[in-house]
Amino acid sequence: MGGARRVANDPLRKERILDAALTVIADRGVHGTTHRRIAAEAEVPLGSLTYHFEGLDAILEQAFQRLADTMGDRYAAALTEAPDQDAACAAVTDLICGDEYATPREMALLHEMYSFANHNRTVAETCRQWLSRSHARLGTHFSPRASRAIDALIEGWPMHQAWEQQPLDRDLVLTTITAIAQRFR
Amino acid sequence: MGGARRVANDPLRKERILDAALTVIADRGVHGTTHRRIAAEAEVPLGSLTYHFEGLDAILEQAFQRLADTMGDRYAAALTEAPDQDAACAAVTDLICGDEYATPREMALLHEMYSFANHNRTVAETCRQWLSRSHARLGTHFSPRASRAIDALIEGWPMHQAWEQQPLDRDLVLTTITAIAQRFR
Repeated sequence: MGGARRVANDPLRKERILDAALTVIADRGVHGTTHRRIAAEAEVPLGSLTYHFEGLDAILEQAFQRLADTMGDRYAAALTEAPDQDAACAAVTDLICGDEYATPREMALLHEMYSFANHNRTVAETCRQWLSRSHARLGTHFSPRASRAIDALIEGWPMHQAWEQQPLDRDLVLTTITAIAQRFR
Repeated sequence: MGGARRVANDPLRKERILDAALTVIADRGVHGTTHRRIAAEAEVPLGSLTYHFEGLDAILEQAFQRLADTMGDRYAAALTEAPDQDAACAAVTDLICGDEYATPREMALLHEMYSFANHNRTVAETCRQWLSRSHARLGTHFSPRASRAIDALIEGWPMHQAWEQQPLDRDLVLTTITAIAQRFR
């Protein structure tokens, strides 16, 4: 079939469709995401979506998994590179305040993912695994109790910042993370 | 008109429609919310929705405003009743861990509100005003810097808990809040 041949010629097409899906979700929300818009964004024929995916839910599930993998990899890399706890506190501060993690686009996608997870078990499981992976990474530098508190801050602080529309006070964040790390040694 | 007469007979109908809208949003997500489902949940004729609201976006905007008012009132009341900072730390811990605030239904609705706010300016403004009101309330007990860190925890911690599916360690939360309050006196 022509579909199958196109796949052989374009092995990254599936990834391209998932990236396009994330762009449409960020721009329009899950409620405004359709096969047609994803196909247009990915610049592939509509039939390519039905060839690769069972339906819109399958696209959304795999797109959110891709988001979790991408953000999770960056989260993990930042902590893995830190040689000691002071460096880990700085790395967490960068995750919260920085320009590379939890960007406005990613925050929009996170909200969409959490909303959709309430109505889709596969995406709920994606969220749970991501959380468990984050805790494990924090646990290489911080006590289990400190890890829980710090991870809650990594979640909540960028969310508030998105509404505040002003840069976060880096010193405030670093001091908070360090205080928690020291309190729960 | 009959519609107008029904309104006079049922002054709370608008509130009832908004509460029904929140129930449908919690159950189905914004992406699954329709006039028809809201009318069925509120047990009112479809025409009653078009009489009271300009369209689905107007219903969603006012429903999320109602959510923010309700949760904001409870947040404010908990802090207002606290006589001193120790009591305020305990009140914040209750907001994070308790059964009355940030319930699973409310967390689901919050995610939906934040998602929708990325695509709707009125709801984005509702989020901003709520945040500003929360900071002001925390500010009666905590320094401005402590208030920011604590509010981020009130946001992030219940979200993680929703995925973890196990009760939060109250002592861990109280110790974290107290450590932040003391660090930023």
